Amino acid sequence: MITDDTIVALATAQGISAIAVIRLSGKNSIGLIQRSFQGKDLTQQPSHTVHFGNIRNSNTIIDDVLVTIYHEPNSFTKENSVEISCHGSPIVVREIIKELLKNGARLAEPGEFTKRAFLNGRFDLAQAEAVADLITSETENARQAAINQMRGGFSKEIEHLRVELIHFASLIELELDFGEEDVQFAKRDDLKKLIFKIQSYLQSLITSFDQGNVIKNGVPTVIAGRPNAGKSTLLNVLLNDDRAIVSEIPGTTRDTIEDEMVLGGINFRFIDTAGLRETKDVIEALGIQRTKERMQKASLIIYLFDLSQTTIDEIATEETTVKQLGVPYIKVGNKVDLADPAIVDVLRSHDFIFISASLQKNIAELKDRILSSFHVQTVKAGDVVVTNLRHYQNLVRTNDALNRVLLGMDMQVTGDFLAMDIRQALHFLGEITGTITTDDLLDNIFSKFCIGK
Amino acid sequence: MITDDTIVALATAQGISAIAVIRLSGKNSIGLIQRSFQGKDLTQQPSHTVHFGNIRNSNTIIDDVLVTIYHEPNSFTKENSVEISCHGSPIVVREIIKELLKNGARLAEPGEFTKRAFLNGRFDLAQAEAVADLITSETENARQAAINQMRGGFSKEIEHLRVELIHFASLIELELDFGEEDVQFAKRDDLKKLIFKIQSYLQSLITSFDQGNVIKNGVPTVIAGRPNAGKSTLLNVLLNDDRAIVSEIPGTTRDTIEDEMVLGGINFRFIDTAGLRETKDVIEALGIQRTKERMQKASLIIYLFDLSQTTIDEIATEETTVKQLGVPYIKVGNKVDLADPAIVDVLRSHDFIFISASLQKNIAELKDRILSSFHVQTVKAGDVVVTNLRHYQNLVRTNDALNRVLLGMDMQVTGDFLAMDIRQALHFLGEITGTITTDDLLDNIFSKFCIGK
Repeated sequence: MITDDTIVALATAQGISAIAVIRLSGKNSIGLIQRSFQGKDLTQQPSHTVHFGNIRNSNTIIDDVLVTIYHEPNSFTKENSVEISCHGSPIVVREIIKELLKNGARLAEPGEFTKRAFLNGRFDLAQAEAVADLITSETENARQAAINQMRGGFSKEIEHLRVELIHFASLIELELDFGEEDVQFAKRDDLKKLIFKIQSYLQSLITSFDQGNVIKNGVPTVIAGRPNAGKSTLLNVLLNDDRAIVSEIPGTTRDTIEDEMVLGGINFRFIDTAGLRETKDVIEALGIQRTKERMQKASLIIYLFDLSQTTIDEIATEETTVKQLGVPYIKVGNKVDLADPAIVDVLRSHDFIFISASLQKNIAELKDRILSSFHVQTVKAGDVVVTNLRHYQNLVRTNDALNRVLLGMDMQVTGDFLAMDIRQALHFLGEITGTITTDDLLDNIFSKFCIGK
Repeated sequence: MITDDTIVALATAQGISAIAVIRLSGKNSIGLIQRSFQGKDLTQQPSHTVHFGNIRNSNTIIDDVLVTIYHEPNSFTKENSVEISCHGSPIVVREIIKELLKNGARLAEPGEFTKRAFLNGRFDLAQAEAVADLITSETENARQAAINQMRGGFSKEIEHLRVELIHFASLIELELDFGEEDVQFAKRDDLKKLIFKIQSYLQSLITSFDQGNVIKNGVPTVIAGRPNAGKSTLLNVLLNDDRAIVSEIPGTTRDTIEDEMVLGGINFRFIDTAGLRETKDVIEALGIQRTKERMQKASLIIYLFDLSQTTIDEIATEETTVKQLGVPYIKVGNKVDLADPAIVDVLRSHDFIFISASLQKNIAELKDRILSSFHVQTVKAGDVVVTNLRHYQNLVRTNDALNRVLLGMDMQVTGDFLAMDIRQALHFLGEITGTITTDDLLDNIFSKFCIGK
């Protein structure tokens, strides 16, 4: 689908910088830039070459630029493409884009470059989605999971299994043509074997989503405890410590999200909460209610006990309350430096970890404990991890449809019912890689991309 | 000065985006990237070519990238250079830069690429400074002024005049060698003619700085008036109107500075102030004092009179106060729809402009008036406008030194005194284009650049 219209957008981040890159794609993109370019004749240059010159608006020079030419199909979109590297000034970028719009380009929609790459067969839909995941990855693990998926991931295997399943679907549909004759082109045992094989693969992918979800979205972690147990101090200690590590590499500072921390490649989203206690104050009670709700929704609770203030009995009572929530939790005894050694001795055998948030004592051990409570392995090259909710849902739906096929065979239903369920499995499977798409599906996916991608 | 060390930095703006570009410069930059690149042998590729491949950290793929190769001296820095176009994820950028640091690159200092370009003779110092001005230009006029300077500007003419002046300095110094013999190699009349020529050119540049300063730094404009005269309403009307125009071109939205507006290519920095009135309240009096100080420092005052509340006498008194500040001001009668027609009639002959901020009446006329109070012409291709304070100061100093030479000749001082003043003029002139530099001067200039430039 090589369209005639040429799209243009800023491909690099907005802001003042050394350089900015403006991207053009479309059959006429090289001729289009040539109209405002002073330098060599770009239409006569080989693919993958860079040319110095300037972009003009009538007789005024907008900027000195480097223009890179890509000939179809050897570009990201598989269309003729141009990248203009100009000075990183928003005004320069605006003026160049204005000039290109005047020449007949139109502004690209979000994700339109990647959409064209998909429609032109550069990669399948799951890979295209991985491009967006890669760009927004917030941890090294998320980056690795995204690039694995972008470079193939489960796409090939799913497509392979899908083709095998199509073969059976066709055979069964062929049986239907023979109507009353009771022939069986599709051997039921072989079909069962294939379904087991597919389900085994689906199951491994479905299982990986637990990890994938954590990798992509982070772990919501609530820090809870009574008032003045040291929750905010702990949060600051955890975050500050983290920030120091991040800032060793310049050029990566982003707007800080106050309560996120990467531990062992996993993004922990810390939520500091109102202190828990019995109260008759209506407003405070509402705050505590909210804390409890957040604790229930958390994936992990770091529960702080103030060892300088609390008796063993009180600790036991509090723990019972936390336990009832059914969420994994870590028992942390804070202010260990002020604690009665006898209490510490008792708690030691109850899986407590002892820290002093204000003295920054044992923080490393706490981090290890937080991390080990999530058995997330580091993603390695080639590991296939499903991180995308859409993929996960379609994998589950495919699996359900295949279960219905198996059930149907056990119940000896007629071929037309089997064929229907197989077709449905094929549909869900095909939507993952984009063999089957609708405009709505594509719009929904690509509209979430950034402009210029 | 081709150094052995290879510098690396992110060249595009930070943030999540379609692509990001990492820049390397240095003799070994191509060999250095090759060590982590899987694809073609980059060391064997011609200059200005682009190559697809991936960057690896040991056996893990960090990202699929496009690498552009530049061979010395045909690069921005005139050194071997590499640009890596990767996915626009801060994590990807960080991992790639980490990998390159491991290979022996070092992080570039702010402006170090441009500094190398200057030291290797790509352009002179005034042009290098224009690169930074171009990047940070906030208006179309500022962009045009910067690119004119970047592409040569006054550099060539100044260098030409400097060489002529050096010629005279040498001749006069030659006379000194002949000591008592009273010879004159340097014809004094010719020297005078040259100095006049130089001064005439300097003067045109010095004069242009008035415009240049406005172009680069904007016009501080205070909106003043009594409480409830409609100052904030007017500010909003002026800004909102402006914002609508700017937002027609997507992709240029920056963090809005609430009180800046571009009118006719000039950046007006509007300052909303506390209302002026007699008061016995100490705190309010302090606020009013600050307003008066800001009015004094402004380049333009838009003074609002509330026509629905004020008598002719009160208006006359207020105007006297404003006039005393000695700052250009525009008299604006607000709430004209609620005004007594008799008052409007009287004021009409006193150069008032009548508006209704809340009804947005006559706002366009007010804008015209604001703009015409600054006789700033649009900068065109080739116009030479001095926008840089350092250049301006050196131009003035050169001019002063040349005045001393003229005075010396009139007073028939000896050649050694003349030579001293000429050498000083040459020094100031040379510092503009960077023929004469010190480490301090360079550090001072380039440290203000962004990293990656």
